[in-house]
Amino acid sequence: KVVINVSGRVFVTRRSTLEKHPNTLLGSSEREFFFDEETGEYYFDRDPEMFRHILNYYRTGKLHFPRHECIALFDEELTFFGIQPDIIGDCCYEDYRDRKRENSE
Amino acid sequence: KVVINVSGRVFVTRRSTLEKHPNTLLGSSEREFFFDEETGEYYFDRDPEMFRHILNYYRTGKLHFPRHECIALFDEELTFFGIQPDIIGDCCYEDYRDRKRENSE
Amino acid sequence: KVVINVSGRVFVTRRSTLEKHPNTLLGSSEREFFFDEETGEYYFDRDPEMFRHILNYYRTGKLHFPRHECIALFDEELTFFGIQPDIIGDCCYEDYRDRKRENSE
Amino acid sequence: KVVINVSGRVFVTRRSTLEKHPNTLLGSSEREFFFDEETGEYYFDRDPEMFRHILNYYRTGKLHFPRHECIALFDEELTFFGIQPDIIGDCCYEDYRDRKRENSE
Ligand SMILES: [Zn+2]
Ligand SMILES: [Zn+2]
Ligand SMILES: [Zn+2]
Ligand SMILES: [Zn+2]
Repeated sequence: KVVINVSGRVFVTRRSTLEKHPNTLLGSSEREFFFDEETGEYYFDRDPEMFRHILNYYRTGKLHFPRHECIALFDEELTFFGIQPDIIGDCCYEDYRDRKRENSE
Repeated sequence: KVVINVSGRVFVTRRSTLEKHPNTLLGSSEREFFFDEETGEYYFDRDPEMFRHILNYYRTGKLHFPRHECIALFDEELTFFGIQPDIIGDCCYEDYRDRKRENSE
Repeated sequence: KVVINVSGRVFVTRRSTLEKHPNTLLGSSEREFFFDEETGEYYFDRDPEMFRHILNYYRTGKLHFPRHECIALFDEELTFFGIQPDIIGDCCYEDYRDRKRENSE
Repeated sequence: KVVINVSGRVFVTRRSTLEKHPNTLLGSSEREFFFDEETGEYYFDRDPEMFRHILNYYRTGKLHFPRHECIALFDEELTFFGIQPDIIGDCCYEDYRDRKRENSE
């Protein structure tokens, strides 16, 4: 198991879950830059709630958009973790696109 | 007491609470497949926030739909834990049904 | 300081914060029924997210209604902790009342 | 690293992250009043969920408004931590302003 500490909130997942998406920060060896030898955890000074959605992407292969959160914050976290927003699920695509438009007006 | 670790977030409940619904994953012996001898916890690589609603179902007998979350993610978690969405509470039924329709269009 | 464990999520507050509202479960000696000698914590098999709003009531004297949550779940938690919904803040009163009406139709 | 305990929820960040905004409670020496020698943590008897948004402000330089939360609660937390709501991000400004108007009617 892999322990990921996102600004204090601890997430535990399987290495195999992360390696499903090798072109992303967490799925590639790039994640090793964030490994903390002392604690044995990967540490990220990022938003813990957004990370929940990021980890769900690894688990389910689908990216869901949390409609009650700011889209700019969501996009920023995706960018940091090297995830393309264009893989957002059909279930959340319309909400995401509408909010995106609203925001760029 | 039973300790359930959902991808790092810890939930503590009573065995009797889980056994109220014996036809579900957590209420039946099926849960033993997820027991981790080392930690003494049940471990699930699932969404921790959705699990809150699942545990509330065991506590209160009612399933509430978190209207700010993606319905596909919600349904997926219910399926995993062997819970039928048709037991959703009256209080949340309309929201659930409307979103379901929107999503299948 | 007082440690309150709500189904696994830990909240730490001051005794004086709780005693601001002596007519409620947490503000009165009734809370002692939930004290766990082994852990030194008060343990409640209740919803941890709703508890955040309950604890905010003790801190700020105002009860806020989380508009993205089910009102029936909210009311149930208030009842358990012996808090009257009529002390809901002006800031959240309209949302609460409208949802209440919707729900009772 | 700095450990900040917000009524039981633990946040870990870097000192340099906090010192980006020296005119705020956390960015200035004022934070030392909240240091707990015993635990080595800064302890605040405040809302943990709102604190997530406050910490994001230090990380990203932008303040996002959580649209599903009560604006009075949000403002109260900002005031406590010495953050001016007028630095709210463009992405969230309209939502914030509209809700503010609604609330003051
Ligand atoms: Zn979705
Ligand atoms: Zn409900
Ligand atoms: Zn309010
Ligand atoms: Zn924003």
